[in-house]
Amino acid sequence: MSKLVIVGTVAFDDIETPFGRSDKILGGAATFIGLAASQFKVSGSVVSVVGGDFPKSYLQLLEDKGMDISAIEVIPDGKTFFWSGRYHNDMNSRDTLSTELNVLADFKPVVAKNYLDSEVLMLGNLHPNIQISVIEQMNSRPNLIILDTMNYWMDNTLDELMQVIKMVDVITINDEEARQLTGEYSLVVAAHKIMTMGPKFVVIKKGEHGALLFHKEEVFFAPALPLEEVFDPTGAGDTFAGGFAGYLAKTGDYSYENMKNAIIYGSALASFCVERFGTERLIDLSKPEMHQRLQQFKNLTQFDIELA
Amino acid sequence: MSKLVIVGTVAFDDIETPFGRSDKILGGAATFIGLAASQFKVSGSVVSVVGGDFPKSYLQLLEDKGMDISAIEVIPDGKTFFWSGRYHNDMNSRDTLSTELNVLADFKPVVAKNYLDSEVLMLGNLHPNIQISVIEQMNSRPNLIILDTMNYWMDNTLDELMQVIKMVDVITINDEEARQLTGEYSLVVAAHKIMTMGPKFVVIKKGEHGALLFHKEEVFFAPALPLEEVFDPTGAGDTFAGGFAGYLAKTGDYSYENMKNAIIYGSALASFCVERFGTERLIDLSKPEMHQRLQQFKNLTQFDIELA
Repeated sequence: MSKLVIVGTVAFDDIETPFGRSDKILGGAATFIGLAASQFKVSGSVVSVVGGDFPKSYLQLLEDKGMDISAIEVIPDGKTFFWSGRYHNDMNSRDTLSTELNVLADFKPVVAKNYLDSEVLMLGNLHPNIQISVIEQMNSRPNLIILDTMNYWMDNTLDELMQVIKMVDVITINDEEARQLTGEYSLVVAAHKIMTMGPKFVVIKKGEHGALLFHKEEVFFAPALPLEEVFDPTGAGDTFAGGFAGYLAKTGDYSYENMKNAIIYGSALASFCVERFGTERLIDLSKPEMHQRLQQFKNLTQFDIELA
Repeated sequence: MSKLVIVGTVAFDDIETPFGRSDKILGGAATFIGLAASQFKVSGSVVSVVGGDFPKSYLQLLEDKGMDISAIEVIPDGKTFFWSGRYHNDMNSRDTLSTELNVLADFKPVVAKNYLDSEVLMLGNLHPNIQISVIEQMNSRPNLIILDTMNYWMDNTLDELMQVIKMVDVITINDEEARQLTGEYSLVVAAHKIMTMGPKFVVIKKGEHGALLFHKEEVFFAPALPLEEVFDPTGAGDTFAGGFAGYLAKTGDYSYENMKNAIIYGSALASFCVERFGTERLIDLSKPEMHQRLQQFKNLTQFDIELA
């Protein structure tokens, strides 16, 4: 069992889907990552910032799930990061209605002292310089650094992004972002190009079309579970990353073979996430449910062709 | 080993992709289906029609691959069905430049006598009434009838299409067509709706995003192999269907479990098809290559999570 540091936003979301509206609820990348990783009972610490308006009950919730919250700074006279968005009917695209950075604008993450020797570091989507500052705080380089990022940083801070990409072992990125970062349409070619930028492992998230894991000349694919209904996709990518990081931290095995299992776990957790608004489904998730969902993934993908 | 009847077009294609132009080459649904099925050394008969302009060498090619061509009618003073199209840069969409039905306009398929007792019938994309006429010719109902169709028949001959759908065991259809046929966006809901129309098995083809097999409450997924380059997608769907039908005919096992293997074989064959223009890659495909490709599909999808 390895210690895990998670850096990212802890926030309020207000989500509208064809099924209804959530009003202001718990959100943020680090929240989803932490809740997903907590399924593995890892020793995890969330590094983030919130305002005085952030309910203590939300922090308590993360703590109850086993997350160390001592590195979530509370700024009493500040307001918590807020995002609101509206999904289109196909649930594959959305409009951002509002983004209020608030306390996130001046976020200077400080890793909790007893987590400075963590083996696994999960960098949620943030300004690349903030991500770098966290890597540099660690006592020694973690055995596994996972980076999540998005097109916004490619558009606005590409140099800094390239610098942090060089420093990590795994990058998780969606298909369009992989294409933007490399100028390549083929995801195979794009992934190989990204591996020359630093990461030894590239995870390309394709939403409802699953996720690909690349390493050297190898490739592994985890489908998304085909669902009757996607209720709210918010946080699915972060949940996927949190399941991936949490499983690797729990097992302490960072091999390509074990990463296959990690992206299956990530996909399984993401398939729960989209069943309800925000973090709702992750919070009440039971072990037998998780077990059953993994069995569904086996049934979905495992076949029995003998190659004589 | 079961006998297999394949009904569909044998044609000329002229294909333009960002990589070049094929000029007039061998094409047609039944051609791709037959070449894919021939990998399994099944006793297969292609039922189709061509004009006097169709090279004997093309017919010879099918025969050399082990296909019975006695039910390919040659109309000496007719012209062979011709299609030409141009793919867009992303290779996921194309424009049809020309469709000349020619001898296909009056196609009245006649199944070869010694194939009237075939166990497996693969109905390639054609007018539903033509598909029905083939089912009705058979001595007794085949053990497995597989139907391929497309949106054109939904737009123009929906009643007839619904009639043939009612008569088959398996339907292969792409994602957009499944949505059109059912008015459901979720492919899970759409597949279940289609199962109420007749077929016990629904295969939804998602192109570069793989294929789903539905049966009762079960679902299985075969990814498309991630490729550095898709050279020409023409015929990939038919190749997939031919691999599916061929494997099932070879094994004579029409269970859901065995259909999982069949769609993996179909996907593997389709991954070859797109590597060159038209049928080129299928024609020179060797057994060791096929073997290696199946191993790639195993590596791509098989994982090892113990569910205690």
